[in-house]
Amino acid sequence: MLVLGIDPGMAILGYGLVKQDGNSLKVIDYGVVNTPSDMETPHRLVAIFESVCKLIDRYAPQAVAVEELFFNKNVKTALAIGHARGVAVLAAALKGIGVYEYTPLQVKQAVVGYGRASKQQVQQMVRILLNLPCVPEPDDAADALAVSICHIHSVALKDKMEKAGF
Amino acid sequence: MLVLGIDPGMAILGYGLVKQDGNSLKVIDYGVVNTPSDMETPHRLVAIFESVCKLIDRYAPQAVAVEELFFNKNVKTALAIGHARGVAVLAAALKGIGVYEYTPLQVKQAVVGYGRASKQQVQQMVRILLNLPCVPEPDDAADALAVSICHIHSVALKDKMEKAGF
Repeated sequence: MLVLGIDPGMAILGYGLVKQDGNSLKVIDYGVVNTPSDMETPHRLVAIFESVCKLIDRYAPQAVAVEELFFNKNVKTALAIGHARGVAVLAAALKGIGVYEYTPLQVKQAVVGYGRASKQQVQQMVRILLNLPCVPEPDDAADALAVSICHIHSVALKDKMEKAGF
Repeated sequence: MLVLGIDPGMAILGYGLVKQDGNSLKVIDYGVVNTPSDMETPHRLVAIFESVCKLIDRYAPQAVAVEELFFNKNVKTALAIGHARGVAVLAAALKGIGVYEYTPLQVKQAVVGYGRASKQQVQQMVRILLNLPCVPEPDDAADALAVSICHIHSVALKDKMEKAGF
């Protein structure tokens, strides 16, 4: 299974592609989509939409996993993230790929094993789980890889539970 | 000039097409796009995106005018409106149509003449300016028509000021 993880944002959108290969995880690609703040919103949204479409066309992931918003952000930030998140989710939906949403708590739980892990602990676990020589940068790309891992773990857990008769 | 006005929302997105014909305004179409709350977000976004694309293909407006968010809404509402607004703006931008944003204050100022007008006053003025027998319903469609009128008035005012040498 190949998963495209997305950490949505208007200025910086992080993405990370993780492949499950038997019991191991492999990074396929990661990075960020930047849109400058002096670019008008409609053009920024087109740039984000087209970048996500290109990633999907290039790698053909089976699922797209997106981080849910922290609700401690302010309304203006929420609106901007909502715009970016909306077009990223739209890109996946238009291409017929399932979109899965995870809260930051679920991501921490799945990657580190407990929900109160620090950002640094999550990033170190991402590095270890993906066998990388150092923590992937920038943070937005590392967060996107974490949400991909979260989806792979969630699917694996669900399979196990179904097999166990839950 | 034909303008597509949009009052963005996830459950109900209002739209209103207004044509400027010399000194008079004419309604071309108005209505709402509904997406049920039990539909998953990705599918709701596809429905909104495709509806806006269809309106643009059908009527070929020269401009899309969108209401800016009231910042007194809560973060969760802002995120949902952001998603819907993002895909509506994207639809216009992908089709190469200019997107113009107006605050509720600017809409009231343009339609009624002062920024503290009530919702009812705005709706009555929309009815009068568009020569309609009664107030257009639902509210979201009336609001979308108001933002179209706002854009037409803003462009006319800009033209006048430019001709006057400002």
